[in-house]
Amino acid sequence: MLTMQDALLALTRYWTERGCIVVQPYNTEVGAGTLNPATVLRVLGPEPWRVAYVEPSVRPDDARYGENPNRLQTHTQFQVILKPDPGDPQELYLGSLEALGIDVRAHDVRFVEDNWASPALGAWGLGWEVWLDGLEITQFTYFQQAGGMSLDPVSVEITYGIERIMMALQGVDHFKDIAYAPGISYGEAFGQAEYEMSRYYLDDADVEANKRLFEEYASEARRMLDARLPVPAHNYVLKCSHTFNVLDARGAISTTERARAFARMRGLAREVAQLWAARREELGHPLGLVEPPAAPELPAAGATDGPETLLFEIGTEELPPAEVTRTVEAVRAAVTEKLAATRLTHGEVQVHGTPRRIVVLVPEVSPREPDAEKTMRGPRVSAAFDADGAPTKAAQGFARGQGVAVADLSRVVENGVEHVAVVKTVPGGGAVEVLGTLLASVVAELRAEKNMKWNDPKLSFTRPIRWLLALLGATPVPVGVSALVSGTTTGVHRTAESPVVAVSTADGYLEFLAQHGITASAAVRRDVVVERAAELAKSVGGVVDFEGVLDEVTNLVEQPTPLLGSFDAKYLELPQQILTTVMRKHQRYLPVRAEDGSLLPHFVAVANGSVDADLVRRGNEAVLRARYEDAAFFWRADLRTPLADLKAGLEKLTFADKLGSMADRAGRIAVLAGRLADVVGGADDTLTRAGELAKFDLGSQMVIELSSLAGVMAREYAARAGEPAEVAQALYEMELPRSAGDALPASRAGALLSLADRFDLLAGLFGIGANPTGSSDPFGLRRAALGAVSVLRAFPELRDITLTKALSLAAQDLDVSAEALENAREFAVRRYEQQLLDAGHDHRFVNAVLPLADAPAQADETLAELTSLAGSEDFAALVAALQRVRRIVPAETAPDYDAGVLGEPAEVALHKALAEVSFEGAGLAAFVAAASGLTGPVNTFFDEVLVMAEDPEVRKARLGLLASIRDLAAPVLDWQALGTALG
Amino acid sequence: MLTMQDALLALTRYWTERGCIVVQPYNTEVGAGTLNPATVLRVLGPEPWRVAYVEPSVRPDDARYGENPNRLQTHTQFQVILKPDPGDPQELYLGSLEALGIDVRAHDVRFVEDNWASPALGAWGLGWEVWLDGLEITQFTYFQQAGGMSLDPVSVEITYGIERIMMALQGVDHFKDIAYAPGISYGEAFGQAEYEMSRYYLDDADVEANKRLFEEYASEARRMLDARLPVPAHNYVLKCSHTFNVLDARGAISTTERARAFARMRGLAREVAQLWAARREELGHPLGLVEPPAAPELPAAGATDGPETLLFEIGTEELPPAEVTRTVEAVRAAVTEKLAATRLTHGEVQVHGTPRRIVVLVPEVSPREPDAEKTMRGPRVSAAFDADGAPTKAAQGFARGQGVAVADLSRVVENGVEHVAVVKTVPGGGAVEVLGTLLASVVAELRAEKNMKWNDPKLSFTRPIRWLLALLGATPVPVGVSALVSGTTTGVHRTAESPVVAVSTADGYLEFLAQHGITASAAVRRDVVVERAAELAKSVGGVVDFEGVLDEVTNLVEQPTPLLGSFDAKYLELPQQILTTVMRKHQRYLPVRAEDGSLLPHFVAVANGSVDADLVRRGNEAVLRARYEDAAFFWRADLRTPLADLKAGLEKLTFADKLGSMADRAGRIAVLAGRLADVVGGADDTLTRAGELAKFDLGSQMVIELSSLAGVMAREYAARAGEPAEVAQALYEMELPRSAGDALPASRAGALLSLADRFDLLAGLFGIGANPTGSSDPFGLRRAALGAVSVLRAFPELRDITLTKALSLAAQDLDVSAEALENAREFAVRRYEQQLLDAGHDHRFVNAVLPLADAPAQADETLAELTSLAGSEDFAALVAALQRVRRIVPAETAPDYDAGVLGEPAEVALHKALAEVSFEGAGLAAFVAAASGLTGPVNTFFDEVLVMAEDPEVRKARLGLLASIRDLAAPVLDWQALGTALG
Repeated sequence: MLTMQDALLALTRYWTERGCIVVQPYNTEVGAGTLNPATVLRVLGPEPWRVAYVEPSVRPDDARYGENPNRLQTHTQFQVILKPDPGDPQELYLGSLEALGIDVRAHDVRFVEDNWASPALGAWGLGWEVWLDGLEITQFTYFQQAGGMSLDPVSVEITYGIERIMMALQGVDHFKDIAYAPGISYGEAFGQAEYEMSRYYLDDADVEANKRLFEEYASEARRMLDARLPVPAHNYVLKCSHTFNVLDARGAISTTERARAFARMRGLAREVAQLWAARREELGHPLGLVEPPAAPELPAAGATDGPETLLFEIGTEELPPAEVTRTVEAVRAAVTEKLAATRLTHGEVQVHGTPRRIVVLVPEVSPREPDAEKTMRGPRVSAAFDADGAPTKAAQGFARGQGVAVADLSRVVENGVEHVAVVKTVPGGGAVEVLGTLLASVVAELRAEKNMKWNDPKLSFTRPIRWLLALLGATPVPVGVSALVSGTTTGVHRTAESPVVAVSTADGYLEFLAQHGITASAAVRRDVVVERAAELAKSVGGVVDFEGVLDEVTNLVEQPTPLLGSFDAKYLELPQQILTTVMRKHQRYLPVRAEDGSLLPHFVAVANGSVDADLVRRGNEAVLRARYEDAAFFWRADLRTPLADLKAGLEKLTFADKLGSMADRAGRIAVLAGRLADVVGGADDTLTRAGELAKFDLGSQMVIELSSLAGVMAREYAARAGEPAEVAQALYEMELPRSAGDALPASRAGALLSLADRFDLLAGLFGIGANPTGSSDPFGLRRAALGAVSVLRAFPELRDITLTKALSLAAQDLDVSAEALENAREFAVRRYEQQLLDAGHDHRFVNAVLPLADAPAQADETLAELTSLAGSEDFAALVAALQRVRRIVPAETAPDYDAGVLGEPAEVALHKALAEVSFEGAGLAAFVAAASGLTGPVNTFFDEVLVMAEDPEVRKARLGLLASIRDLAAPVLDWQALGTALG
Repeated sequence: MLTMQDALLALTRYWTERGCIVVQPYNTEVGAGTLNPATVLRVLGPEPWRVAYVEPSVRPDDARYGENPNRLQTHTQFQVILKPDPGDPQELYLGSLEALGIDVRAHDVRFVEDNWASPALGAWGLGWEVWLDGLEITQFTYFQQAGGMSLDPVSVEITYGIERIMMALQGVDHFKDIAYAPGISYGEAFGQAEYEMSRYYLDDADVEANKRLFEEYASEARRMLDARLPVPAHNYVLKCSHTFNVLDARGAISTTERARAFARMRGLAREVAQLWAARREELGHPLGLVEPPAAPELPAAGATDGPETLLFEIGTEELPPAEVTRTVEAVRAAVTEKLAATRLTHGEVQVHGTPRRIVVLVPEVSPREPDAEKTMRGPRVSAAFDADGAPTKAAQGFARGQGVAVADLSRVVENGVEHVAVVKTVPGGGAVEVLGTLLASVVAELRAEKNMKWNDPKLSFTRPIRWLLALLGATPVPVGVSALVSGTTTGVHRTAESPVVAVSTADGYLEFLAQHGITASAAVRRDVVVERAAELAKSVGGVVDFEGVLDEVTNLVEQPTPLLGSFDAKYLELPQQILTTVMRKHQRYLPVRAEDGSLLPHFVAVANGSVDADLVRRGNEAVLRARYEDAAFFWRADLRTPLADLKAGLEKLTFADKLGSMADRAGRIAVLAGRLADVVGGADDTLTRAGELAKFDLGSQMVIELSSLAGVMAREYAARAGEPAEVAQALYEMELPRSAGDALPASRAGALLSLADRFDLLAGLFGIGANPTGSSDPFGLRRAALGAVSVLRAFPELRDITLTKALSLAAQDLDVSAEALENAREFAVRRYEQQLLDAGHDHRFVNAVLPLADAPAQADETLAELTSLAGSEDFAALVAALQRVRRIVPAETAPDYDAGVLGEPAEVALHKALAEVSFEGAGLAAFVAAASGLTGPVNTFFDEVLVMAEDPEVRKARLGLLASIRDLAAPVLDWQALGTALG
């Protein structure tokens, strides 16, 4: 058996043989190997660097007293940096797995999209998690930025999670059982430290002392930057970071403190990076400079005789599933469009995609473009020849410029004017040549949502492009772009005997790929998954639940190999949402359900290509077991804990500066829910009890681990603790909606709690000035405002709870300025506005109802009425009349007038019409019904009466009359905002 | 070429193959691998543990900006712990050198005594530095105590200094030039960090911030101990320790702060150790328990026929040179004495010793002891038989007890009384058996100055005993002691083809050893060294300077192989004292001088056994070159620095709490020297200038590195800076005496500065309560007081500078209580007393002159006079008379009397005799000369006069007369203290 220390030695040996230098773990606590200066500083600047090292990585937050089988406060990373990208880092990586004795042909090794960003380091990269039979064993990243600086060249970062790898290789279920060295287990070697350091991080670290340490470290870092010493400065940034993590694990960091600490660390890290880079430059880059790969010579283009099929393949490293689809479409569009701009004839452009290739096939491409004529226009005939018909200097000059004799000039008529002209024959290009240029531009223009650099000096895409294959029939098409030149080979499975194979002809390429175990068509892959998964599920009497994962799975593999796995039925005691969340989100497994929809203890995993099915199944089962064991561990621990004790745990969770603990917040929510209830008729027992329990599940281990289950677990735990079903449901609904488009509360109690939750957040955070800025919204205030508005819209019966009212009730227990409250209200109104616009409402209608947005349900109704009235001519006329009124009356004019002064018939008629309107401010439809009688009299009034009479009394009365009409209409909506929408 | 990373991998591989587990360097800064919990905690308690790891060890004090070729703030240790001692750790270690590609047969690998103690850890051990051709490459220690706890079992700790090993193996002169990995040097990989961390440690670390950090860490450690969590507690102790080292490197730790910090860290470390041991016990010792080696069965003893030679060899690991000599003597004495207690006859006991064996040879040992008779005494005959001559019960009981019939009782006369008795024959023992027991007891009783434990359950000695060889002629002598049993083999050189060889007979054993390249006789080895070294020196026209090192060298090897080495003559520019100090103290080389005594650029190193002479010579030359390069580096840097700048450096050196910096102290010394000069006639220019420069060399790099050169360097640097020779000399003499027996100042200025230095120290430290306690004297106050007294004794012309006077002058610039000053004075007097007693003076004489010790030169003179008078009967009579006077006169009696009251002839005579004495308090001899006329009158007075006359007037006068005599004599010495010494 390979022990853990053997594995570390094997990796060290493997990578040193590939030119890495070995350094030691850093001698201060780091959260990851990335933080070791051998990575985070060395990736900066133009010097080459290849390094490998072990890094015991300290994550206080992961401390579990050594009890959790998979979670450790110190886990062992093996870190590799390859700078520059050697061009084949994935192949090198697979070699390292073989060095560990892993048969990469038998196992399912996959590169699953996983991008990495460390805001605290000002760093990010794109890459993958590497899965071994469903188990994440490595993080593989193309490091793009560090310390806020773009990296050039980029580095490949490979981080192995050693404990996980060893557990998989040794087939043990608890990290303590790993054979660390001959005769000594991991637990025997490190168990006591794991327990004791967990105690320190979770229970015993002195919070105030650590806060002081943070300050001391930050100020030493600052001083070292000022002294232009990046190495000690970095050292102290690391100490800051660890101390922050300790405080965080102790639950002593409020959200605002977190944001401040991060900003501070990020700022320091950026300065460290810049200073390091500057210092390396001053030192003359002692390790030399990376040479970018040179662009190879492009071979001469051949020619084809007759119509041939074009094959163009862009070979990539594993694309993110969404990018496979996107890129197929983009390439199809680009090739089609660019071909149209040539004079080549061709059949229909087909494009297929897998994670590792985009395949373009175009049948019947003509061998050459036909020659074309091109007319070059010269001066007007009238200017080209003088009165004698002799060519002028203009004509002579034109002819000379075109390289023809004046005598050879012909004539064209353009816009009715006759010009001299030259007609030239443009020879058609050979297809090979034309396509070469065309395809190069397709590659050069490829872009994804997120793009990265690799060892290519110019290209940028979602993942590295490693090869181009271009054939027209059997003729190679030379495509050269940046450092890439097309060839006549393709990469098949990396684990194939020959991973690179020659391709002789474009025709039958999909079959050729199929022979190498690659299904180029996503549709076919999808069908295979559906069909085979269904068969597998059927074999255990179930059906597959494809929800959510199918598209992703289809594009995670080049050849789907669905496998049926099982898990112990005992885990079915867990809420199904937990089980499916883990399967889908973490593992991309397809759940298997019984006919009645209940979960069966099975799942379908989709492996890539031909693997040892039993081996891979066992691996995937072990991963799921570990994850379920984790969840079950929390589940059981939580169920053993009385709700009151869970709730008491909230006191340890700091919420935000000046806003106390999460317990304080939960208390405020309960009070606020009661006050909101009072606005709309009072609280019932359900609301009161649910208020008492509000947020208790945040104190449960399950939610601490899987925060997305907040609310879900509240419902589960409350129900199992004997609370009434309505209370349990209200606690669940309180967390709704969790995102845009999520379900809304269904019950009144749930709605009131949801509102209380969100208004407390808005009032509190705006109160302390933590407004969202730019794209930064660390507290999720946008989501909260949207949620509150959505709930109010869904519960018209709660319309008396206006934004203004709700915020002022929320503010009663907080210290919030009127201005801050108004900002919060305005912020919520803006979210409502955006919601309406996103739903496709006419922006003028939206603007028209915005004055009503303090009660969104009211605004909704008005908007609906407005929309249904939009086609009505009467309504349009009323609107026009009212707008006319509003245009002429100064804003300050009061709605009073002495009717006795009015004498003209039109004005008297209007006065009377107004007097007949009976409207008490109850909606647009009612207003229209009541007020449409005004349209005619208003129009007549304007036609016949001069508002600005010379007699001031008369003028005043006329304006007063109009102002009264204006004010009658004003509360209904913003008439001006409608503009001429209805006209 | 083996790169450094290859070397680390090779060692890792070697030791894992020998059952070590590999752990990672610790993730907080440690000063040595020992501090990693994998050593310092795991060596505690009864569990087995074998571990190997790399440890980048941070020593802020060694920071040199990367400029010094051999000194780094972070150097790389490779650490191995073998617990328990496997019995052959040296052999395992040599194997590891071979794994590094070192040919241990060609090189000179030696184990040179070097004991290790870390007061801060409450830890110590005995062991060696391992030398590779004179270069210290490894520390090898049997760890005896840690955290104040005795270790059982003991661990073997092997610490490789990797950079040094690599420099030697790669033949490079600067650590930056080490090939760290293929194509990358150590300097390229780590040079920038070395520079920048040096900057932090030496120049830029914030002192106050680090002091605060120290406090935070210490208090977290304290809290974790209270929480019973030794691992995090240890973590914080390490952080304390590193922070302390940072402060120390910044020169921010005063002597008193150092003592306090050490005490605190030691206290914490002890608690950590105890808690760890307790916790391991609570956990049930998860790694199991070490089984001590069982004592093997002792074979049956054979027999010899005639007289045979006894050979007994105690095979050890390398003994300290002094212990070789000591043990040879001790074994000779023990064997001789124990043989005398047997009835075996034998020739003269010969004992020889080398570092690895003590060889006992005793010729002509008789094969058996003769039988002997033994008489057992019973009751008196009178009690044994009743009146009828029948045996009493007493006789019957005695006979029964002795197992004989009453009739067989014989008789013996003892002290004139006749007893019944039994005479038994005691059979003589066979020599083999008798010797077996005897030799076992010799081994069991072996003790050295410092003793240690190894894997033997009971034995204790200066180094492990690994084998016993015992033969009587050709007959094995079974000797069993603890787990050791004697055999018939011996260990020869470890690098021999067969390191263990059979010995067939005792005769000719020394020749047998010689055939294996081992010279058992120290005298022979010494002769070889002297003869061969002289030859070598002669070959370069020089002579060897054997001073100081010869005995040590003789006992560092089993077969001396002197080699002539050379160094670059340019280093001769350095003061010779530096050169010889390095050669002798650090390298045990013999300097080579020209006829005129000046140094030649050669040395003789003494290797062990047969080696590749050229290889070993080159190695030794490289070591010396590196050391001289270091020294030259400091020398040149110091010479470039004006004296004033060196002196200014003293301000950065904190001296002690409340006593300011070293610059403050130097200032006080200058002032005090002036004041002392004023007492004895004033200061001259030499004193004034030397005072201005006092201690300046403490600011020089040379003295910072080699503190033993303080004063020496002052003289050198001052002379080269153009100061007058007298000033340079005075600065040198100021530091004298540096230890007991050292030279004293010769010049007046030197003496005054020396006194000022020492009195400032005494007044200052006593003033702040830093008196020495028990054996602890961190400030060297004993040495200072002894030095001051020695100087005062050597300069009688300075006798007006009394202790009292000097201390009170010193106190003028300090805040010292009168009580503290008196304590300091008393402390100095005690040192003087001890000095006199150590010199062999009669303790009564010493006591007699102690009242004069305030001026030691005065006391010395009196003591000398007293000693010369000691044989004189007149003097004895005078003393007796004066003692008689003192006995009778109450202490409070005043020395006044009315002579007119006196009437008795004897009292009148005494009055007259007294009146004739002319003495002005100028020494004992003068007093005796003046006062010996009193002896007769005093005696007559006592014979004839009753002092306690009834008439009070008379009584008063008589007592006054006697008191006058008493007071006349009192200042001369303490007469009572003489007792009857002279009688």
